[in-house]
Amino acid sequence: MKATAEAHPNIAFIKYWGNRNQILRIPANGSLSMNLDSLFTRTTVTFDPNLTTDGLRLNHVPAGGSALSRVSDLLERVRRLANIDTRAEVISENNFPTGSGIASSASAFAALALAASAAAGLNLSEKQLSILARTGSGSAARSVPGGFVEWKPGNSHSSSYAYSIAPPEHWDLADLIAVVSTEHKVTGSTSGHAIADSSPLQAARVDDAPRRLAACRQALLDRDFEKFAEVVELDSNIMHAVMQTSTPPLIYWQPATIAVMHAVRAWRKAGLPVCYTIDAGPNVHILTLKPEHSKVKRLLQEIPGVQDILRAFPGGPAKLIYQEALNV
Amino acid sequence: MKATAEAHPNIAFIKYWGNRNQILRIPANGSLSMNLDSLFTRTTVTFDPNLTTDGLRLNHVPAGGSALSRVSDLLERVRRLANIDTRAEVISENNFPTGSGIASSASAFAALALAASAAAGLNLSEKQLSILARTGSGSAARSVPGGFVEWKPGNSHSSSYAYSIAPPEHWDLADLIAVVSTEHKVTGSTSGHAIADSSPLQAARVDDAPRRLAACRQALLDRDFEKFAEVVELDSNIMHAVMQTSTPPLIYWQPATIAVMHAVRAWRKAGLPVCYTIDAGPNVHILTLKPEHSKVKRLLQEIPGVQDILRAFPGGPAKLIYQEALNV
Repeated sequence: MKATAEAHPNIAFIKYWGNRNQILRIPANGSLSMNLDSLFTRTTVTFDPNLTTDGLRLNHVPAGGSALSRVSDLLERVRRLANIDTRAEVISENNFPTGSGIASSASAFAALALAASAAAGLNLSEKQLSILARTGSGSAARSVPGGFVEWKPGNSHSSSYAYSIAPPEHWDLADLIAVVSTEHKVTGSTSGHAIADSSPLQAARVDDAPRRLAACRQALLDRDFEKFAEVVELDSNIMHAVMQTSTPPLIYWQPATIAVMHAVRAWRKAGLPVCYTIDAGPNVHILTLKPEHSKVKRLLQEIPGVQDILRAFPGGPAKLIYQEALNV
Repeated sequence: MKATAEAHPNIAFIKYWGNRNQILRIPANGSLSMNLDSLFTRTTVTFDPNLTTDGLRLNHVPAGGSALSRVSDLLERVRRLANIDTRAEVISENNFPTGSGIASSASAFAALALAASAAAGLNLSEKQLSILARTGSGSAARSVPGGFVEWKPGNSHSSSYAYSIAPPEHWDLADLIAVVSTEHKVTGSTSGHAIADSSPLQAARVDDAPRRLAACRQALLDRDFEKFAEVVELDSNIMHAVMQTSTPPLIYWQPATIAVMHAVRAWRKAGLPVCYTIDAGPNVHILTLKPEHSKVKRLLQEIPGVQDILRAFPGGPAKLIYQEALNV
């Protein structure tokens, strides 16, 4: 009853912010993302009859509190599906910095959903895994399928899941992540989602989301970088507009965030295929085409405040890398 | 037929962004502001029968193009009211940097409306002057009355004007203007207003404006700094949310703008009465109480990127300082 799975984080081109159902994490709007191949979470789940409680080690450190209880909630769903009562030990590691806008909870809960269900002897479909991962962290729904992924918002537990709209090799995009701060963010995404509706702008953001999503999906399928760039930056700005006008306001941008935003727009104006998008943190994802990524990286290194640059290309689905299941 | 007038710029606590009628500058929403006593535009208008065209000197430099034609449009309104046909020479000077978010067009058109109408022998009421100034620059309507001023949006030329809701001595506020850039802004307010409706968020901003204006007016009348601070920052963030999500996006913030925003929020959390508001430019207006202004200024001077700090207290109305009128 032991399994290990790996999943990539993803970068959303059309963002998820705010829930229709906060407990089940059914989102206010659909979203669109790309998995990030070089970054991953690796998670091992061992169901052990000798355990009296679930346990969690995160990046080699024992974790309790809300991190453990979110993991335990997902394990509980798996136990109900598998009709077992055994507690589990979860060991999870990221190969990238946690909690600074690189969505570690997405890869973490996608890997957990796969490892836990496999260790429990379940053989869930991609759709079922996406639904299960979603209950731990909304954007984890998008880290289950591979490549370019759309999360259909749905209106119930069983209708809200993500699926691939194109494989990783569809478009040779590159994501350069300009790290401007590695501090753990002050307000995590879960509490952020909960106050999205306090912004006078959230309803307008949600109402316009299907238009933006359709434009982004089409630009992606057509590999039309210019159209893609415009809608990706607009959608990122719209999400931060809601964040910055909620109560309390969430101002994730730092001085270097703005410096990178201006630089990226100037480079695109000068003809370089490049655009930015920013998750719930200060770091900036700079999207470009693979042949240009070294040049863009050199330009980014010259901006004051950019401390580090991570690089990723389109990544595959969550995958099982070890399984020692019940009755196997 | 010569007159000189002075008017102060104003800082809006509840912002004006977007017009219901672009030509007449009838705004999409009501706004609320304070005149800034130490800053002013001084404008002299001379109607001279020897002139064949209107002329303009701005800060000692002859001006043509769109600056002159905006001035000429206002002079033309004055000529129609006074039933004259004489061309005029306009000499205008600011004692503060032009075009970087300190609303020079507000003080300029308020001073011009007063000087031109007086030079033409008209004796307009404050309301008529506010309406006249509005046609040159919307926010100029608010630089005509004194102290704390509300601009009623109205729905026609004659119903859209500003009036004082409290005299300058009502509340001992101070405005410290952190200058982070003196470059002329890329997109001026007039073209900015014209694209406000291209943001998917503008309608929601406008719909919620009466609520914000009422909350701000009440906090101002009650001298309740904490409530004032929350709504002033929210309204500024909401205007920039619309700007940043219009087509094309207008991103006026610079790295030091964000640095000041974060610092001000941290100071308020630590108990200092201080909040920020930002017009259509990168500079930050930091509002505080007069007894605290020296301390706040010292704190601001330590933020990297703050090049200069201007200071203003609540200012009076536009005023005539010299008149040599027709038949006088």
